[in-house]
Amino acid sequence: MIFNSDNVAGAAPEIVAALVAAATGPAMPYGADPWTASVEKKLAAAFETDDIAVFPVATGTAANVTALSAIMPPWGAVLCHEASHINVDESSAPEFYTGGRLVGLAGEGGKLSLETVERALRTIGQRGVHQVQPRVLSLTQATESGTVYTPDEIRALSSLAHEKGCKVQMDGARFANAIAHLGCSPADVTWKAGVDVLSFGATKNGCMAAEAVIFFGKDKAGDYANRRKRGGHLFSKMRFISAQLDAYLEGGLWLKLARHANDKAARLAKGLTALPGFGLLWPVEANELFVTMPPAVIDRLSTTGAGFYRWDEGSIRLVTSFATTDEEVGQFLSVAATAAGAAA
Amino acid sequence: MIFNSDNVAGAAPEIVAALVAAATGPAMPYGADPWTASVEKKLAAAFETDDIAVFPVATGTAANVTALSAIMPPWGAVLCHEASHINVDESSAPEFYTGGRLVGLAGEGGKLSLETVERALRTIGQRGVHQVQPRVLSLTQATESGTVYTPDEIRALSSLAHEKGCKVQMDGARFANAIAHLGCSPADVTWKAGVDVLSFGATKNGCMAAEAVIFFGKDKAGDYANRRKRGGHLFSKMRFISAQLDAYLEGGLWLKLARHANDKAARLAKGLTALPGFGLLWPVEANELFVTMPPAVIDRLSTTGAGFYRWDEGSIRLVTSFATTDEEVGQFLSVAATAAGAAA
Amino acid sequence: MIFNSDNVAGAAPEIVAALVAAATGPAMPYGADPWTASVEKKLAAAFETDDIAVFPVATGTAANVTALSAIMPPWGAVLCHEASHINVDESSAPEFYTGGRLVGLAGEGGKLSLETVERALRTIGQRGVHQVQPRVLSLTQATESGTVYTPDEIRALSSLAHEKGCKVQMDGARFANAIAHLGCSPADVTWKAGVDVLSFGATKNGCMAAEAVIFFGKDKAGDYANRRKRGGHLFSKMRFISAQLDAYLEGGLWLKLARHANDKAARLAKGLTALPGFGLLWPVEANELFVTMPPAVIDRLSTTGAGFYRWDEGSIRLVTSFATTDEEVGQFLSVAATAAGAAA
Amino acid sequence: MIFNSDNVAGAAPEIVAALVAAATGPAMPYGADPWTASVEKKLAAAFETDDIAVFPVATGTAANVTALSAIMPPWGAVLCHEASHINVDESSAPEFYTGGRLVGLAGEGGKLSLETVERALRTIGQRGVHQVQPRVLSLTQATESGTVYTPDEIRALSSLAHEKGCKVQMDGARFANAIAHLGCSPADVTWKAGVDVLSFGATKNGCMAAEAVIFFGKDKAGDYANRRKRGGHLFSKMRFISAQLDAYLEGGLWLKLARHANDKAARLAKGLTALPGFGLLWPVEANELFVTMPPAVIDRLSTTGAGFYRWDEGSIRLVTSFATTDEEVGQFLSVAATAAGAAA
Repeated sequence: MIFNSDNVAGAAPEIVAALVAAATGPAMPYGADPWTASVEKKLAAAFETDDIAVFPVATGTAANVTALSAIMPPWGAVLCHEASHINVDESSAPEFYTGGRLVGLAGEGGKLSLETVERALRTIGQRGVHQVQPRVLSLTQATESGTVYTPDEIRALSSLAHEKGCKVQMDGARFANAIAHLGCSPADVTWKAGVDVLSFGATKNGCMAAEAVIFFGKDKAGDYANRRKRGGHLFSKMRFISAQLDAYLEGGLWLKLARHANDKAARLAKGLTALPGFGLLWPVEANELFVTMPPAVIDRLSTTGAGFYRWDEGSIRLVTSFATTDEEVGQFLSVAATAAGAAA
Repeated sequence: MIFNSDNVAGAAPEIVAALVAAATGPAMPYGADPWTASVEKKLAAAFETDDIAVFPVATGTAANVTALSAIMPPWGAVLCHEASHINVDESSAPEFYTGGRLVGLAGEGGKLSLETVERALRTIGQRGVHQVQPRVLSLTQATESGTVYTPDEIRALSSLAHEKGCKVQMDGARFANAIAHLGCSPADVTWKAGVDVLSFGATKNGCMAAEAVIFFGKDKAGDYANRRKRGGHLFSKMRFISAQLDAYLEGGLWLKLARHANDKAARLAKGLTALPGFGLLWPVEANELFVTMPPAVIDRLSTTGAGFYRWDEGSIRLVTSFATTDEEVGQFLSVAATAAGAAA
Repeated sequence: MIFNSDNVAGAAPEIVAALVAAATGPAMPYGADPWTASVEKKLAAAFETDDIAVFPVATGTAANVTALSAIMPPWGAVLCHEASHINVDESSAPEFYTGGRLVGLAGEGGKLSLETVERALRTIGQRGVHQVQPRVLSLTQATESGTVYTPDEIRALSSLAHEKGCKVQMDGARFANAIAHLGCSPADVTWKAGVDVLSFGATKNGCMAAEAVIFFGKDKAGDYANRRKRGGHLFSKMRFISAQLDAYLEGGLWLKLARHANDKAARLAKGLTALPGFGLLWPVEANELFVTMPPAVIDRLSTTGAGFYRWDEGSIRLVTSFATTDEEVGQFLSVAATAAGAAA
Repeated sequence: MIFNSDNVAGAAPEIVAALVAAATGPAMPYGADPWTASVEKKLAAAFETDDIAVFPVATGTAANVTALSAIMPPWGAVLCHEASHINVDESSAPEFYTGGRLVGLAGEGGKLSLETVERALRTIGQRGVHQVQPRVLSLTQATESGTVYTPDEIRALSSLAHEKGCKVQMDGARFANAIAHLGCSPADVTWKAGVDVLSFGATKNGCMAAEAVIFFGKDKAGDYANRRKRGGHLFSKMRFISAQLDAYLEGGLWLKLARHANDKAARLAKGLTALPGFGLLWPVEANELFVTMPPAVIDRLSTTGAGFYRWDEGSIRLVTSFATTDEEVGQFLSVAATAAGAAA
């Protein structure tokens, strides 16, 4: 009954099996191995384009900040949601890698609105060299609030950003959950919608430690390879990152795992909102729930051994994963019902 | 017959088994898991002291540069061997993380002499704020030349460094091979000899991607944890790094693997030096050989499919690993003998 | 009739004379000259303490960011007003020098309230290494809104900051104007009120290019000297910065010049607020006025040749200086009256 | 009798007069003033091309490191003489601003030979992303050894650098002395010889604090303006830097001052080499002398009150300036003669 985070889960059996298989025999280091080559092919297929540059890394923070550093100058600003991971959970890694600044913007349900971004682009950096200049729009898909941008929303935001000389970076730590929700092609919410570079997350969704930085357009990668290396993020035995990604992409495993997580979140949402005094802060579109309830109920829930984080006052966050079972969902609904009743 | 590098090998079966075992069930993220706790205990035992601070990371470059950044100011200089990994194989990662400068010093067989370090400490930084100031002495154990510092050598160098206000960092990417050669306690060439922080390498010696930064003295770690995070090197599913290290340390596996690699290197050395015109640049004390031979022989060897790197003119580098077999050694000796004969 | 900024003015005659006098004959470089020694003595007298460390630099940005870099780690956050110079007018210099992050906070009249800072200190950085940690509170005196913190306000803010492990930095680009307004001792709003380091500005108040970074407590300067040098801000012919500061401090010139500027601002304020439809955004306590008026009046004023900047809609900013004359004030009041009448 | 450095001198009367004249009246800040415009015109004339971008700054270190940062990536290496100012007298400013690395190369008389640079370009960075990549060749004109590159030498070095994808930066802290020696056009040793960006020094040659970063080709400046600002090197009252440069360039003052300094150096050289046991390390082509003499003579000279620095054992450095008088030269020759005699 641990719903603290999807990083609490282990690894999917298929991922584990792939690592075991990859462990024997020699392979050239630093990405010159067959697993890395296979990942590139599978991502090209999944994203319906050969014009991509793929760079495996091992943490989400590494994926985000190395990508940002490759697409902006050190006097640039990144427009992002104020609750985005780069803004609240990556220490000063963005400043360290980019040399520039994050500008956190407010937005309902973890999403940036066109109006908000338009205003920011219009007002930030007007005084030329005296100020940081917006150069990147960073979108999180799925968002930190468990919501999902539609292809239309991304297209409109990207179009605006490009008009103003910004690149578009997508933090896809939960990209699979977004695609599972939308049912669209990965291309529809990335390069076809104007995204320049994606942090394609896999760790939270069944891998051990594997992410891929994907530039949509080989020429957009610029000097990324040099920057990954100087960040200490180039793995000698790269095969062990790539083998995870390879299995993750094989036969649509990534979407299967994400659908599982999303489904459990939906079940939790359905069950919890049926309880008296319970509600949702935002629609449950991926694998995160933000549930409102009377403070006394939260206090009671805290004593049940159920794992979750308190959010703002009067709400908690629950995260499901590929490993969440119906039994766990049922257990949580049960203790929640008890807590709701007892508190009432 | 691939002797290009020890990073060409896969992973030892015990490491793989540990990962498989660690993959199931929940565990708290970012190091609050039992594997990480176990690694700390095993390292304390191996190094015969509880006063250590242990931080798992996943690449050797990450281990080195995050450690350096935690023990020196941005106007500091790191004295290191000119052929050390930080100086020639980590791009500008040292500058990126530390903000300071590397000063590469010459030294026979990959080792720094007391005289060389003494002179550097005496002459570098004399003009105060106008110059970078020596603040770290970095030693590589085993060295990039396949040689090993004795405890006495390290003690003398560390003592000198400390007298002059420098900390001592040890790049132990092949630390296991050094200990296997020396037959001493790990403590003897680290904290007992004055080393302040060690990059305890495991990747090259049978792990997939696992290193531990070990501060000898909990208080010496300073703000290392913050620096690891802002470098993007804090893993959410830390258990998968720690499980590797845990198995690596279990029952002396790490030394067993290293002894295996060293033994194969010794066999290669013995066999090769028996060939006419063959010699060694430096003593073979770990798992690397630098073999001199007539250029024509090198050219012939290059056509045999044997994997190795050319070093300076007239020499090649061979690296053995935990996975090297006697059969491979035999094969190489055989083609080398043929090449030697044909060329002669 | 140029009220765009105080940096539009030239230099005060006394400053110019001091430079002329300093130009002849040899002097040891990098601060080992009599002018620099004299500045230290005069600042010690002005601030009523010998326990200060003084470092002349030449730009306000340099003063602020070098000081910040010396008192915080690269994973730290600086709490500052959202309209502060470091937050809106120094590009990414703060990130460049500190490696950390600015957190801009709202506050009426350019001032941070105790409540705002308390909330920020309570909420920012709660998730440990995952987040930047507040380490500096930066106060601007006088503020960018032309207001001035009282000694009590600074004392309360500093006390809170220190309790939470933060240092207090003061951006005193217009420090003289603040002291001229308060009529207190410089000590009262700095070290006696808990300020750890001050950017003592002189450029805007009659110097050519001269600021002094003053640490209150010689031991607080840490490695500042090294950081100034590596920023490129250590002047070889330091005498020419110090000679300006020396004259600036001689006989209270700095306060005389500031009183002049403040007085002109007060006259402007008095005259303008007497006009129909005119008002002030904030009290005029230093040498900046933020004047509200009908948009049509602003448009008319823009055509008169009077120099000023539009602020938010419906307001303009006027800045007076040591060089502002009563004639200029009269001229502006005259055209403003005409514009007010014409627009009405 | 102070020959420690040319930064010991004050400022030339013409420079002082220009500052006095510039001090009165308003001027728009940050370079939008007539002095800055005039400097651009005069430099265009002096360098015989309108296609330049000019950026005044105030220290030589600032000029060098901001320029380097604008023309190389953070994984780049700067090839420079091991005795160059950036390599030995600018702390870690080069690493701070560029993020990359300096590679100091040996060279007789402070000059880099074609062979040395060719070898460095051939051998450094061969292992791709694992290593820093040469991206800039930095030449010092006049060199730190008091010698001067000929136009042919610069042309050959620049041509080689460009072929290998490097830009050419020139540290011209003593550029005037070099031109005074060569008697050629400034264009001949800069853009016509392949130099991309020059630190045009003025401080050492009669200014107070003034340097100009000159890009030969407006498009080569890239984002330099943003980088100057974020380094804290954009002056609000820019006129006071520019007025110095303007006077410095007026009527060839800069060359007049440099010829004066060079002439005094030549006289010293002539007089000293006539003494028994005295010699020169390198030809005296600018305003620095490196004089060899018996150690006992150096010891005696040290007691005479004459200002100089000891260089390597058995030699001293003397630097003349625009302010050096024949009387001072005579005095030094006199005490040197006495010291030589007494020691013998």
